[in-house]
Amino acid sequence: MTPEARDAADPLRHVRERFALLDYLTYLDGNSLGALPKATADAVAKTVSEDWGNGLIRSWNHAGWIDAPARIGAKIAPLIGAQPHEVIAADSTSVNLFKLLTAALQARPGKIVTEPGNFPTDLYIAQGAANLLGRPLVTTDDVLGDIDDDTAVVLLTHVHYKTAAVHDMAAITAAAHRHNALVLWDLSHSAGAIPVDLNGAKADLAVGCGYKYLNGGPGAPAFLFVAERHHDSLHSPLTGWMGHAEPFAFRDDYAPAEGIRRFLCGTPPILGLAALEAGIDIFADLDLGAVFAKSRALTSLFIELIDATDLGFEVVTPRDPARRGSHVSLTHPHAWPICQTAIARGVIGDFRAPDILRFGFTPLYTRFTDVARAVETLADIIQTREYEHPRFQRRAAVT
Amino acid sequence: MTPEARDAADPLRHVRERFALLDYLTYLDGNSLGALPKATADAVAKTVSEDWGNGLIRSWNHAGWIDAPARIGAKIAPLIGAQPHEVIAADSTSVNLFKLLTAALQARPGKIVTEPGNFPTDLYIAQGAANLLGRPLVTTDDVLGDIDDDTAVVLLTHVHYKTAAVHDMAAITAAAHRHNALVLWDLSHSAGAIPVDLNGAKADLAVGCGYKYLNGGPGAPAFLFVAERHHDSLHSPLTGWMGHAEPFAFRDDYAPAEGIRRFLCGTPPILGLAALEAGIDIFADLDLGAVFAKSRALTSLFIELIDATDLGFEVVTPRDPARRGSHVSLTHPHAWPICQTAIARGVIGDFRAPDILRFGFTPLYTRFTDVARAVETLADIIQTREYEHPRFQRRAAVT
Repeated sequence: MTPEARDAADPLRHVRERFALLDYLTYLDGNSLGALPKATADAVAKTVSEDWGNGLIRSWNHAGWIDAPARIGAKIAPLIGAQPHEVIAADSTSVNLFKLLTAALQARPGKIVTEPGNFPTDLYIAQGAANLLGRPLVTTDDVLGDIDDDTAVVLLTHVHYKTAAVHDMAAITAAAHRHNALVLWDLSHSAGAIPVDLNGAKADLAVGCGYKYLNGGPGAPAFLFVAERHHDSLHSPLTGWMGHAEPFAFRDDYAPAEGIRRFLCGTPPILGLAALEAGIDIFADLDLGAVFAKSRALTSLFIELIDATDLGFEVVTPRDPARRGSHVSLTHPHAWPICQTAIARGVIGDFRAPDILRFGFTPLYTRFTDVARAVETLADIIQTREYEHPRFQRRAAVT
Repeated sequence: MTPEARDAADPLRHVRERFALLDYLTYLDGNSLGALPKATADAVAKTVSEDWGNGLIRSWNHAGWIDAPARIGAKIAPLIGAQPHEVIAADSTSVNLFKLLTAALQARPGKIVTEPGNFPTDLYIAQGAANLLGRPLVTTDDVLGDIDDDTAVVLLTHVHYKTAAVHDMAAITAAAHRHNALVLWDLSHSAGAIPVDLNGAKADLAVGCGYKYLNGGPGAPAFLFVAERHHDSLHSPLTGWMGHAEPFAFRDDYAPAEGIRRFLCGTPPILGLAALEAGIDIFADLDLGAVFAKSRALTSLFIELIDATDLGFEVVTPRDPARRGSHVSLTHPHAWPICQTAIARGVIGDFRAPDILRFGFTPLYTRFTDVARAVETLADIIQTREYEHPRFQRRAAVT
């Protein structure tokens, strides 16, 4: 079947119309920053002009601001196999990692176990928490082998940000539980793109990103998950007033809120939450099975088309679709200038040091014809040696 | 001079036109949530539709997103007597309190000293940090008397959120420095409304709120200040990737950025920062001396007019204008229903338990006639006993 025919047969083909994407753009970087949902501009404008501008302080009650973190968390829950009251939208992924990692370290003796090459902020936050609390941090390629009775918490990213390799959440969680350790999963590259079943895997803790596959906008609020069985026993050290049992009683002594709200900290970021909610609302009427199936179909087609070329690319993403996320990474000796040339041609992926070209396939808006166009463009860039032009060699602040 | 004549003579009278405030509204709660600047709606809409929608991932470089925290921090600096490179916009006030408090505790042995009745999130964060690091927390009415050689850090809010009483920043800082302690100032109720001279007072650390007198919108990003002399020696334990020396090198090992950027944590919240920047930009062409003088004139007029009534109000805010912030608090036995009745009449202040009515006078948009109208309305509500109506007794989630 041609890419055009596959687009025509795609049960999700109309979902792209809910995004403000230019037709000629082949946007394959939704794994880094999701596209703008058309409804978001209106949702944010209403929040700014009506709720803030006219409602002013009254909107904390009347416009549902105070409930936004829990309300949005409940909407994220079905995407990750959680119960609605186990998820809350708050802060950044990094801050949420710190909250849950230190909560786990306070509840369990022993070390943190993670893997080298984990997303940098996960490693950095682990280093910060380990230093602060004087705990060992073991960074190991043999995570399963290094989990032992002296392990407090295992910190892993479910889908690897470079390779897209997926960890076996149930197996690693079970191994940790055999040693009375907790596992903290970073779902930044999974939530909204591939199946995640936190409760099915008996997961303890998770965090995730709002601005990738959830399309919440640049620097969107993140989310965190704490399994219900841990709600009473775990405590974030970031005991801000929004996590208090009675924030508006203005008492001098901290008392944690019941349930997931105790993991809130400061005043919720309402503009960011308004955009995040509009992004997540797109999933409400979609068949998640179809979403996840399309992710696999898109990445499979990309790998198949790349394999059919002979251009110096090596696929570093697992070929088994059950073992990969929704992006595909290729190595190439000229990865940086090829990436810049492709962007100039309207095929937007990204570069990850030292030699990786990364292409994300958000199932909500990526077309099979986008996949074909991306590979054709890459082939042309290499065959014409356009990437050798000096203007494609220059490095930017953000890659 | 009548309130009308004072408005006519006010050198800042045209600044109100930059805000989307309804003419008949007497909004005296800008100390809780600042009003919407008219430019903000366009700034946020551009960020959403052009920068995110069209620019997509490219806007991290091309729309200045990556520099927003430092750029906005530099714009806040003149309002608080800081150098541009000593301030950065990030996270929430609560998260920033935790960062700087734990940084101070890592750099200094000993206890935290704070005062009872400090803003709750300051107390709660201090309790969380003290518990996490096993440090004593002394909550004392005699802060100066309890600072000793075993003090690591003093945590105080510059302007008290209830009474508006101002601490003597220079004197307390000097007392702490005599004992080699650091001081962390919360400027949430001062920045943008009254004179703050951090470097003049030789201050060490400060945090502040973006959504009060800076008019950054509900849950706006907060800011933090670290005096240049401490940049190399202090370390936030929230070592997220945006505080790394080279965030886009994606290295496994954390290395702090030079200067104030090391106090960043996760990905910056771009929509919130866009609104915050629009709010702060209003100050750019204003005479700050005139802004602060108007704050004093407004609060003085309010106290004078309240004093001229005989309605059961007691002014709990200092009468010396040099010793108070930009809000005035009154106690009254029926504070809650009076507050609700006034809101229904379009005079918006707020209530703080157990019996405080609080009115904020943002110098940028509050008129002298607003002050007069507020007192007239309060008088009428009490004289007519309208506040006794059952609909004004009901409590709301957020007060």
